[in-house]
Amino acid sequence: MPELDLDAIPQTNTTGYPAPFDAPVAGRWYRRLAPVGGLTEMGASHVVLKPGGWSSQRHWHDDEDELLVMLTGEAVLIEDSGRTVLKPGDICAWPMGNTNGHHLINESDTDCSFVAIGAGNQDGTGGYSDIDMMFDAEGYCRRDGTRYPAKRAR
Amino acid sequence: MPELDLDAIPQTNTTGYPAPFDAPVAGRWYRRLAPVGGLTEMGASHVVLKPGGWSSQRHWHDDEDELLVMLTGEAVLIEDSGRTVLKPGDICAWPMGNTNGHHLINESDTDCSFVAIGAGNQDGTGGYSDIDMMFDAEGYCRRDGTRYPAKRAR
Repeated sequence: MPELDLDAIPQTNTTGYPAPFDAPVAGRWYRRLAPVGGLTEMGASHVVLKPGGWSSQRHWHDDEDELLVMLTGEAVLIEDSGRTVLKPGDICAWPMGNTNGHHLINESDTDCSFVAIGAGNQDGTGGYSDIDMMFDAEGYCRRDGTRYPAKRAR
Repeated sequence: MPELDLDAIPQTNTTGYPAPFDAPVAGRWYRRLAPVGGLTEMGASHVVLKPGGWSSQRHWHDDEDELLVMLTGEAVLIEDSGRTVLKPGDICAWPMGNTNGHHLINESDTDCSFVAIGAGNQDGTGGYSDIDMMFDAEGYCRRDGTRYPAKRAR
């Protein structure tokens, strides 16, 4: 069935982030949609952010475009340029290679949800704006190239 | 700004479909999001379907994955396998090469809206389930290969 049965897709809050960068995303509960939907040219996740939850560490992709569609609730988008409150129906686009990192934080007292889509190099590279971390297909490293022990979550 | 200002993006109901196949999509008002958002690895459209409007002729893509996120209102998804009513928050995935064609029809008496995303070969090929038409990067042809005069809409 092309209509995805969200309730039947396992939800997880797993992350490959090394401590202590993993703690802020503990309230991010996501479902990977592309494998279930048979899609190979894009990645897509349905994400529920619990109150206080972060969508990710603030990051950018070198070689993958991102699109986000807000479904329910409210989240604050944070970037170099400041804060923007996102509401249902709002859409964000982040072109690959733009190093103005972004993430969403649920500062409200109820869940919010969104769909995040990525296309390009799904094993690509990128970085994090606020912490000493970069990512690549293998996992995470510091800016000086030394590796973190954790593996990148898939 | 990564948050797209939908109101500032021109909305059009243009189609490259040759007559009489263009008439059912006259109530499809869309905004192309990828050019405004600077995205090159995916196509994305915000679509408003007026009552009676079709999202497209019932079609499939040979080499492009599609994802759809319902935002507001209600539409009926039609495929070989039957009819499914879609509501806000519903998500559909259509993998490239699956010839079970799909489209949405707004059978309600109010507007509905959704976001449609495509990734893969954006100049690719595909076909239509219910009419004698195929598409490619140049436009439209019959199954016997003879061309229709209209150009494919971009």
